[in-house]
Amino acid sequence: MRILAIESSAKAASVALTDNGSLISQYFQASALTHSRTLLCMAEDLLSNLELSLSDIDVIAAAKGPGSFTGIRIGLAAAKGLAWGGDKPICGVSTLEAMAWHLSDRHGVIICPAMDARRGEIYNAKFISDSSGNLQRVCDDRAVPLSILIDEAKNDDIPYFFVGDGARMCYNEFLENGIQAFLPPEALLLQSAWGVARAAEQTKPEFSFDLVPNYLRLSQAERERLERSKKN
Amino acid sequence: MRILAIESSAKAASVALTDNGSLISQYFQASALTHSRTLLCMAEDLLSNLELSLSDIDVIAAAKGPGSFTGIRIGLAAAKGLAWGGDKPICGVSTLEAMAWHLSDRHGVIICPAMDARRGEIYNAKFISDSSGNLQRVCDDRAVPLSILIDEAKNDDIPYFFVGDGARMCYNEFLENGIQAFLPPEALLLQSAWGVARAAEQTKPEFSFDLVPNYLRLSQAERERLERSKKN
Repeated sequence: MRILAIESSAKAASVALTDNGSLISQYFQASALTHSRTLLCMAEDLLSNLELSLSDIDVIAAAKGPGSFTGIRIGLAAAKGLAWGGDKPICGVSTLEAMAWHLSDRHGVIICPAMDARRGEIYNAKFISDSSGNLQRVCDDRAVPLSILIDEAKNDDIPYFFVGDGARMCYNEFLENGIQAFLPPEALLLQSAWGVARAAEQTKPEFSFDLVPNYLRLSQAERERLERSKKN
Repeated sequence: MRILAIESSAKAASVALTDNGSLISQYFQASALTHSRTLLCMAEDLLSNLELSLSDIDVIAAAKGPGSFTGIRIGLAAAKGLAWGGDKPICGVSTLEAMAWHLSDRHGVIICPAMDARRGEIYNAKFISDSSGNLQRVCDDRAVPLSILIDEAKNDDIPYFFVGDGARMCYNEFLENGIQAFLPPEALLLQSAWGVARAAEQTKPEFSFDLVPNYLRLSQAERERLERSKKN
Protein backbone atom coordinates (compact mmCIF):
# COMPACT_ATOMS: atom_id res chain seq x y z
CA MET A 1 0.00 0.00 0.00
CA ARG A 2 1.45 3.34 -1.08
CA ILE A 3 0.70 6.31 1.18
CA LEU A 4 1.36 9.89 0.09
CA ALA A 5 1.61 11.86 3.34
CA ILE A 6 1.51 15.60 3.97
CA GLU A 7 2.62 17.55 7.04
CA SER A 8 2.20 21.33 7.39
CA SER A 9 1.17 21.96 11.00
CA ALA A 10 3.99 24.40 11.87
CA LYS A 11 6.91 26.20 10.22
CA ALA A 12 8.29 23.04 8.59
CA ALA A 13 6.46 21.33 5.74
CA SER A 14 7.05 17.90 4.30
CA VAL A 15 5.75 15.29 1.91
CA ALA A 16 6.58 11.58 2.08
CA LEU A 17 5.81 8.40 0.21
CA THR A 18 5.81 5.05 1.98
CA ASP A 19 5.21 1.64 0.44
CA ASN A 20 3.95 -1.08 2.80
CA GLY A 21 5.50 0.78 5.70
CA SER A 22 8.89 1.46 4.08
CA LEU A 23 10.04 5.03 3.54
CA ILE A 24 10.59 5.47 -0.21
CA SER A 25 10.97 9.25 -0.34
CA GLN A 26 10.66 12.27 1.89
CA TYR A 27 10.97 15.93 0.99
CA PHE A 28 11.30 18.23 4.00
CA GLN A 29 11.58 21.99 4.16
CA ALA A 30 11.85 24.37 7.14
CA SER A 31 12.13 27.76 5.45
CA ALA A 32 10.28 31.07 5.83
CA LEU A 33 8.22 30.38 2.69
CA THR A 34 4.49 29.77 3.07
CA HIS A 35 3.20 26.21 2.72
CA SER A 36 0.72 27.38 0.07
CA ARG A 37 3.76 28.17 -2.08
CA THR A 38 5.85 25.05 -1.36
CA LEU A 39 3.70 22.07 -0.30
CA LEU A 40 2.11 21.01 -3.58
CA CYS A 41 5.34 21.77 -5.48
CA MET A 42 7.10 19.34 -3.15
CA ALA A 43 4.42 16.68 -3.70
CA GLU A 44 4.62 17.12 -7.46
CA ASP A 45 8.45 16.98 -7.50
CA LEU A 46 8.48 13.93 -5.25
CA LEU A 47 6.09 11.92 -7.44
CA SER A 48 7.76 13.04 -10.66
CA ASN A 49 11.26 12.12 -9.38
CA LEU A 50 9.95 8.66 -8.46
CA GLU A 51 8.42 8.38 -11.95
CA LEU A 52 5.02 7.94 -10.28
CA SER A 53 1.73 9.76 -10.65
CA LEU A 54 -1.27 10.24 -8.39
CA SER A 55 -2.84 7.11 -9.92
CA ASP A 56 -0.04 5.00 -8.34
CA ILE A 57 -0.98 6.14 -4.82
CA ASP A 58 -3.43 4.19 -2.64
CA VAL A 59 -4.06 6.58 0.26
CA ILE A 60 -3.59 10.30 0.89
CA ALA A 61 -2.71 11.11 4.51
CA ALA A 62 -2.41 14.45 6.28
CA ALA A 63 -1.84 15.89 9.73
CA LYS A 64 -5.20 17.31 10.86
CA GLY A 65 -4.00 19.19 13.93
CA PRO A 66 -3.44 20.54 16.42
CA GLY A 67 -1.09 23.18 15.03
CA SER A 68 -0.97 26.38 13.03
CA PHE A 69 -4.54 27.17 11.88
CA THR A 70 -3.37 28.33 8.46
CA GLY A 71 -0.79 25.55 8.09
CA ILE A 72 -3.32 22.83 8.80
CA ARG A 73 -5.93 24.38 6.48
CA ILE A 74 -3.34 24.40 3.67
CA GLY A 75 -2.35 20.77 4.35
CA LEU A 76 -5.91 19.44 4.54
CA ALA A 77 -6.98 21.44 1.49
CA ALA A 78 -4.06 19.99 -0.48
CA ALA A 79 -4.80 16.45 0.77
CA LYS A 80 -8.52 16.75 -0.04
CA GLY A 81 -7.70 18.19 -3.48
CA LEU A 82 -5.39 15.26 -4.25
CA ALA A 83 -7.91 12.73 -2.88
CA TRP A 84 -10.77 14.26 -4.86
CA GLY A 85 -8.73 14.63 -8.06
CA GLY A 86 -7.34 11.11 -7.83
CA ASP A 87 -10.45 9.44 -6.34
CA LYS A 88 -8.38 8.19 -3.39
CA PRO A 89 -9.33 7.49 0.22
CA ILE A 90 -8.01 10.00 2.73
CA CYS A 91 -6.66 9.62 6.23
CA GLY A 92 -6.38 12.46 8.76
CA VAL A 93 -4.11 11.82 11.73
CA SER A 94 -3.23 13.65 14.91
CA THR A 95 -0.20 15.91 14.39
CA LEU A 96 0.99 14.90 17.86
CA GLU A 97 0.63 11.15 17.32
CA ALA A 98 2.48 11.47 13.97
CA MET A 99 5.43 13.05 15.79
CA ALA A 100 5.37 10.43 18.54
CA TRP A 101 6.20 7.81 15.88
CA HIS A 102 9.64 9.49 15.45
CA LEU A 103 10.48 8.16 18.92
CA SER A 104 8.82 4.74 18.95
CA ASP A 105 12.23 3.10 19.53
CA ARG A 106 12.72 5.01 22.81
CA HIS A 107 11.76 2.93 25.81
CA GLY A 108 11.58 3.76 29.51
CA VAL A 109 10.55 7.35 28.77
CA ILE A 110 7.38 9.39 28.28
CA ILE A 111 7.29 10.29 24.57
CA CYS A 112 5.94 13.84 24.59
CA PRO A 113 5.21 15.56 21.25
CA ALA A 114 5.05 19.29 21.96
CA MET A 115 4.09 22.28 19.86
CA ASP A 116 4.18 25.95 20.77
CA ALA A 117 0.46 26.86 21.05
CA ARG A 118 1.30 30.51 21.95
CA ARG A 119 -0.55 32.31 24.77
CA GLY A 120 1.60 30.42 27.31
CA GLU A 121 0.33 27.00 26.26
CA ILE A 122 1.73 23.83 24.72
CA TYR A 123 -0.16 21.46 22.44
CA ASN A 124 0.95 18.08 23.69
CA ALA A 125 0.09 14.46 24.31
CA LYS A 126 1.94 11.60 25.97
CA PHE A 127 2.80 8.15 24.69
CA ILE A 128 4.77 5.12 25.86
CA SER A 129 6.41 2.70 23.43
CA ASP A 130 6.18 -1.00 24.22
CA SER A 131 8.99 -3.48 23.55
CA SER A 132 7.73 -4.05 19.98
CA GLY A 133 7.78 -0.30 19.24
CA ASN A 134 3.99 0.08 19.36
CA LEU A 135 2.74 3.34 20.85
CA GLN A 136 0.36 3.41 23.82
CA ARG A 137 -1.42 6.73 24.22
CA VAL A 138 -1.27 8.04 27.81
CA CYS A 139 -3.45 11.15 27.40
CA ASP A 140 -5.56 12.91 24.76
CA ASP A 141 -4.22 15.70 22.55
CA ARG A 142 -4.59 18.89 24.59
CA ALA A 143 -3.45 22.50 25.05
CA VAL A 144 -2.11 23.11 28.57
CA PRO A 145 0.31 25.56 30.20
CA LEU A 146 3.89 24.29 30.39
CA SER A 147 3.67 24.59 34.19
CA ILE A 148 1.07 21.78 34.21
CA LEU A 149 3.38 19.53 32.17
CA ILE A 150 6.18 20.24 34.66
CA ASP A 151 3.93 19.39 37.63
CA GLU A 152 2.88 16.13 35.97
CA ALA A 153 6.51 15.23 35.20
CA LYS A 154 7.46 15.70 38.86
CA ASN A 155 4.83 13.06 39.72
CA ASP A 156 5.57 10.76 36.76
CA ASP A 157 9.18 10.17 37.89
CA ILE A 158 10.19 8.95 34.42
CA PRO A 159 12.19 11.05 31.91
CA TYR A 160 10.36 12.97 29.17
CA PHE A 161 11.52 12.69 25.55
CA PHE A 162 10.30 15.71 23.60
CA VAL A 163 9.71 16.04 19.85
CA GLY A 164 8.17 18.82 17.75
CA ASP A 165 8.52 22.55 17.22
CA GLY A 166 7.87 23.13 20.95
CA ALA A 167 10.30 20.42 22.07
CA ARG A 168 13.31 22.65 22.68
CA MET A 169 11.26 25.10 24.78
CA CYS A 170 9.91 22.26 26.95
CA TYR A 171 13.34 20.66 27.23
CA ASN A 172 14.93 23.92 28.44
CA GLU A 173 12.14 24.54 31.00
CA PHE A 174 12.43 20.97 32.29
CA LEU A 175 16.21 21.28 32.77
CA GLU A 176 15.74 24.63 34.54
CA ASN A 177 13.32 22.86 36.89
CA GLY A 178 15.83 20.06 37.51
CA ILE A 179 13.77 17.44 35.61
CA GLN A 180 15.51 15.00 33.26
CA ALA A 181 14.51 15.44 29.60
CA PHE A 182 15.77 14.46 26.15
CA LEU A 183 15.66 15.73 22.56
CA PRO A 184 16.07 13.66 19.35
CA PRO A 185 18.65 14.49 16.65
CA GLU A 186 17.71 17.50 14.51
CA ALA A 187 16.53 15.38 11.55
CA LEU A 188 13.81 13.88 13.80
CA LEU A 189 13.06 16.97 15.90
CA LEU A 190 10.35 18.62 13.83
CA GLN A 191 7.06 17.32 12.46
CA SER A 192 7.48 15.06 9.42
CA ALA A 193 5.33 13.52 6.73
CA TRP A 194 7.08 10.21 7.49
CA GLY A 195 5.49 10.37 10.96
CA VAL A 196 2.11 11.13 9.35
CA ALA A 197 2.46 8.06 7.11
CA ARG A 198 3.35 5.88 10.11
CA ALA A 199 0.30 7.12 12.03
CA ALA A 200 -1.86 6.61 8.92
CA GLU A 201 -0.83 2.94 8.80
CA GLN A 202 -2.72 2.53 12.10
CA THR A 203 -5.83 4.37 10.85
CA LYS A 204 -8.61 3.30 8.48
CA PRO A 205 -8.72 5.65 5.48
CA GLU A 206 -12.12 6.84 4.24
CA PHE A 207 -13.61 7.88 0.92
CA SER A 208 -14.97 11.05 2.45
CA PHE A 209 -14.46 14.78 2.41
CA ASP A 210 -15.76 15.25 5.95
CA LEU A 211 -12.23 15.48 7.34
CA VAL A 212 -11.93 18.72 9.32
CA PRO A 213 -9.05 20.24 11.29
CA ASN A 214 -8.75 19.51 14.99
CA TYR A 215 -7.61 22.86 16.33
CA LEU A 216 -8.27 22.06 20.03
CA ARG A 217 -8.92 25.78 20.57
CA LEU A 218 -10.94 28.58 19.01
CA SER A 219 -9.20 30.72 16.42
CA GLN A 220 -8.24 34.28 17.38
CA ALA A 221 -11.15 35.70 15.31
CA GLU A 222 -13.66 33.34 16.96
CA ARG A 223 -12.28 34.10 20.41
CA GLU A 224 -12.49 37.86 19.87
CA ARG A 225 -16.05 37.60 18.52
CA LEU A 226 -17.06 35.58 21.60
CA GLU A 227 -15.48 38.17 23.89
CA ARG A 228 -17.31 40.99 22.05
CA SER A 229 -20.63 39.18 22.27
CA LYS A 230 -20.13 38.61 26.03
CA LYS A 231 -19.49 42.35 26.52
CA ASN A 232 -22.65 43.35 24.60
CA MET B 1 27.29 29.26 6.04
CA ARG B 2 25.02 27.42 3.63
CA ILE B 3 26.08 23.88 2.71
CA LEU B 4 24.49 21.99 -0.18
CA ALA B 5 25.19 18.32 0.60
CA ILE B 6 24.92 15.24 -1.62
CA GLU B 7 24.77 11.57 -0.61
CA SER B 8 24.67 8.73 -3.15
CA SER B 9 26.88 5.97 -1.73
CA ALA B 10 24.24 3.19 -1.79
CA LYS B 11 20.65 2.60 -2.98
CA ALA B 12 19.29 5.73 -1.29
CA ALA B 13 20.16 9.18 -2.59
CA SER B 14 19.63 12.51 -0.90
CA VAL B 15 20.33 16.21 -1.09
CA ALA B 16 20.22 18.59 1.86
CA LEU B 17 20.73 22.25 2.59
CA THR B 18 21.92 23.42 6.00
CA ASP B 19 22.43 26.99 7.15
CA ASN B 20 24.90 27.52 10.01
CA GLY B 21 24.29 23.95 11.12
CA SER B 22 20.47 24.03 10.93
CA LEU B 23 18.67 21.68 8.57
CA ILE B 24 16.68 23.86 6.15
CA SER B 25 15.67 21.19 3.63
CA GLN B 26 16.32 17.56 2.82
CA TYR B 27 15.11 15.55 -0.14
CA PHE B 28 15.59 11.79 0.29
CA GLN B 29 14.79 8.96 -2.09
CA ALA B 30 15.29 5.18 -1.77
CA SER B 31 13.86 3.90 -5.05
CA ALA B 32 15.15 1.59 -7.76
CA LEU B 33 15.95 4.57 -10.02
CA THR B 34 19.61 5.34 -10.76
CA HIS B 35 21.20 8.31 -9.03
CA SER B 36 22.29 9.67 -12.42
CA ARG B 37 18.57 10.13 -13.14
CA THR B 38 17.45 11.50 -9.77
CA LEU B 39 20.28 13.23 -7.89
CA LEU B 40 20.67 16.49 -9.81
CA CYS B 41 16.87 16.74 -10.28
CA MET B 42 16.53 16.58 -6.49
CA ALA B 43 19.20 19.28 -6.02
CA GLU B 44 17.53 21.52 -8.61
CA ASP B 45 14.05 21.03 -7.09
CA LEU B 46 15.36 21.63 -3.58
CA LEU B 47 17.02 24.94 -4.47
CA SER B 48 14.12 26.10 -6.60
CA ASN B 49 11.55 25.32 -3.87
CA LEU B 50 13.64 27.35 -1.42
CA GLU B 51 13.76 30.18 -3.99
CA LEU B 52 17.55 29.89 -3.92
CA SER B 53 20.14 29.37 -6.63
CA LEU B 54 23.65 27.97 -6.67
CA SER B 55 25.00 31.49 -6.09
CA ASP B 56 23.37 31.47 -2.60
CA ILE B 57 25.38 28.39 -1.54
CA ASP B 58 28.75 28.68 0.25
CA VAL B 59 30.04 25.09 0.16
CA ILE B 60 29.26 21.93 -1.83
CA ALA B 61 29.69 18.74 0.21
CA ALA B 62 29.55 15.11 -0.87
CA ALA B 63 30.12 11.63 0.52
CA LYS B 64 33.38 10.38 -1.03
CA GLY B 65 33.13 6.75 0.05
CA PRO B 66 33.35 3.99 0.87
CA GLY B 67 30.26 2.68 -0.90
CA SER B 68 28.90 1.79 -4.31
CA PHE B 69 31.59 2.56 -6.89
CA THR B 70 29.04 3.90 -9.39
CA GLY B 71 26.99 5.72 -6.73
CA ILE B 72 30.00 7.57 -5.38
CA ARG B 73 31.25 8.47 -8.87
CA ILE B 74 27.83 9.99 -9.66
CA GLY B 75 27.76 11.93 -6.37
CA LEU B 76 31.30 13.31 -6.69
CA ALA B 77 30.80 14.15 -10.37
CA ALA B 78 27.63 16.07 -9.50
CA ALA B 79 29.35 17.84 -6.58
CA LYS B 80 32.37 18.78 -8.70
CA GLY B 81 30.11 19.98 -11.49
CA LEU B 82 28.17 22.22 -9.10
CA ALA B 83 31.39 23.48 -7.47
CA TRP B 84 33.01 24.22 -10.82
CA GLY B 85 29.89 25.83 -12.30
CA GLY B 86 29.25 27.94 -9.21
CA ASP B 87 32.92 28.61 -8.30
CA LYS B 88 32.36 27.14 -4.85
CA PRO B 89 34.68 25.30 -2.47
CA ILE B 90 34.03 21.58 -2.14
CA CYS B 91 34.20 19.25 0.81
CA GLY B 92 34.43 15.44 0.54
CA VAL B 93 33.58 13.52 3.70
CA SER B 94 33.69 9.89 4.75
CA THR B 95 30.37 8.16 4.02
CA LEU B 96 30.75 6.31 7.32
CA GLU B 97 31.47 9.41 9.40
CA ALA B 98 28.48 11.17 7.80
CA MET B 99 26.20 8.33 8.96
CA ALA B 100 27.71 8.33 12.45
CA TRP B 101 26.37 11.87 12.91
CA HIS B 102 22.82 10.42 12.79
CA LEU B 103 23.57 8.86 16.17
CA SER B 104 25.64 11.54 17.91
CA ASP B 105 23.00 11.75 20.68
CA ARG B 106 23.50 8.07 21.58
CA HIS B 107 25.83 7.64 24.53
CA GLY B 108 27.28 4.54 26.19
CA VAL B 109 27.35 2.67 22.87
CA ILE B 110 29.73 2.06 19.98
CA ILE B 111 28.27 3.98 17.02
CA CYS B 112 28.95 1.67 14.09
CA PRO B 113 28.08 2.86 10.56
CA ALA B 114 27.89 -0.26 8.39
CA MET B 115 27.49 -0.80 4.66
CA ASP B 116 27.17 -4.03 2.75
CA ALA B 117 30.53 -4.29 0.90
CA ARG B 118 29.51 -7.64 -0.73
CA ARG B 119 31.97 -10.54 -0.90
CA GLY B 120 31.28 -11.28 2.79
CA GLU B 121 32.60 -7.93 4.00
CA ILE B 122 31.24 -4.84 5.73
CA TYR B 123 32.49 -1.31 5.23
CA ASN B 124 32.48 0.06 8.74
CA ALA B 125 34.07 2.34 11.29
CA LYS B 126 33.46 2.94 14.99
CA PHE B 127 32.76 6.14 16.88
CA ILE B 128 31.88 7.18 20.41
CA SER B 129 29.85 10.28 21.19
CA ASP B 130 30.94 12.42 24.14
CA SER B 131 28.51 14.18 26.48
CA SER B 132 28.38 17.23 24.17
CA GLY B 133 27.47 15.07 21.16
CA ASN B 134 30.92 15.33 19.54
CA LEU B 135 32.10 12.19 17.77
CA GLN B 136 35.39 10.49 18.67
CA ARG B 137 36.64 8.13 15.98
CA VAL B 138 37.67 4.71 17.36
CA CYS B 139 39.00 3.14 14.14
CA ASP B 140 39.66 4.03 10.51
CA ASP B 141 37.16 3.36 7.72
CA ARG B 142 37.74 -0.26 6.67
CA ALA B 143 36.30 -3.30 4.91
CA VAL B 144 36.30 -6.37 7.18
CA PRO B 145 34.34 -9.62 7.42
CA LEU B 146 31.33 -9.42 9.75
CA SER B 147 32.91 -12.20 11.84
CA ILE B 148 35.73 -9.81 12.81
CA LEU B 149 33.24 -7.18 13.94
CA ILE B 150 31.51 -9.83 16.05
CA ASP B 151 34.82 -10.92 17.66
CA GLU B 152 35.66 -7.29 18.46
CA ALA B 153 32.20 -6.70 19.96
CA LYS B 154 32.64 -9.70 22.27
CA ASN B 155 35.77 -7.99 23.66
CA ASP B 156 34.37 -4.43 23.66
CA ASP B 157 31.60 -5.38 26.13
CA ILE B 158 29.56 -2.28 25.16
CA PRO B 159 26.45 -2.38 22.92
CA TYR B 160 26.79 -1.57 19.22
CA PHE B 161 24.39 0.92 17.59
CA PHE B 162 24.29 0.32 13.83
CA VAL B 163 23.37 2.74 11.04
CA GLY B 164 23.54 2.46 7.25
CA ASP B 165 22.41 0.12 4.50
CA GLY B 166 24.33 -2.75 6.18
CA ALA B 167 22.97 -1.98 9.66
CA ARG B 168 20.09 -4.47 9.64
CA MET B 169 22.36 -7.32 8.49
CA CYS B 170 24.88 -6.59 11.28
CA TYR B 171 22.10 -6.17 13.85
CA ASN B 172 20.59 -9.56 12.96
CA GLU B 173 23.99 -11.31 13.09
CA PHE B 174 24.80 -9.71 16.45
CA LEU B 175 21.48 -10.86 17.95
CA GLU B 176 22.03 -14.37 16.58
CA ASN B 177 25.40 -14.36 18.35
CA GLY B 178 23.81 -13.18 21.60
CA ILE B 179 25.38 -9.71 21.44
CA GLN B 180 23.30 -6.64 22.30
CA ALA B 181 22.76 -4.28 19.35
CA PHE B 182 20.47 -1.42 18.35
CA LEU B 183 19.02 0.17 15.21
CA PRO B 184 17.77 3.76 14.77
CA PRO B 185 14.24 4.59 13.50
CA GLU B 186 13.82 4.08 9.76
CA ALA B 187 14.10 7.80 8.93
CA LEU B 188 17.68 7.76 10.32
CA LEU B 189 18.66 4.25 9.23
CA LEU B 190 20.10 4.92 5.78
CA GLN B 191 22.79 7.31 4.58
CA SER B 192 21.62 10.93 4.39
CA ALA B 193 22.81 14.23 2.96
CA TRP B 194 22.03 15.78 6.36
CA GLY B 195 24.76 13.54 7.81
CA VAL B 196 27.12 14.64 5.02
CA ALA B 197 26.44 18.29 5.86
CA ARG B 198 27.10 17.65 9.55
CA ALA B 199 30.40 15.94 8.75
CA ALA B 200 31.29 18.77 6.34
CA GLU B 201 30.89 21.30 9.17
CA GLN B 202 33.92 19.62 10.81
CA THR B 203 36.01 19.67 7.60
CA LYS B 204 37.82 22.49 5.81
CA PRO B 205 36.41 22.91 2.28
CA GLU B 206 38.85 23.46 -0.59
CA PHE B 207 38.79 25.24 -3.93
CA SER B 208 40.10 22.15 -5.65
CA PHE B 209 39.03 19.45 -8.06
CA ASP B 210 41.49 16.92 -6.67
CA LEU B 211 38.74 15.22 -4.64
CA VAL B 212 38.71 11.51 -5.50
CA PRO B 213 36.59 8.63 -4.24
CA ASN B 214 37.84 6.57 -1.31
CA TYR B 215 36.75 3.07 -2.32
CA LEU B 216 38.88 1.21 0.28
CA ARG B 217 39.07 -1.69 -2.20
CA LEU B 218 39.88 -2.27 -5.83
CA SER B 219 36.95 -2.29 -8.26
CA GLN B 220 35.85 -5.63 -9.73
CA ALA B 221 37.50 -4.76 -13.08
CA GLU B 222 40.81 -3.83 -11.41
CA ARG B 223 40.72 -6.96 -9.24
CA GLU B 224 40.11 -9.21 -12.22
CA ARG B 225 42.89 -7.54 -14.24
CA LEU B 226 45.28 -8.06 -11.32
CA GLU B 227 44.30 -11.73 -11.07
CA ARG B 228 44.79 -12.18 -14.83
CA SER B 229 48.23 -10.52 -14.70
CA LYS B 230 49.25 -12.78 -11.80
CA LYS B 231 48.27 -15.86 -13.81
CA ASN B 232 50.24 -14.72 -16.88
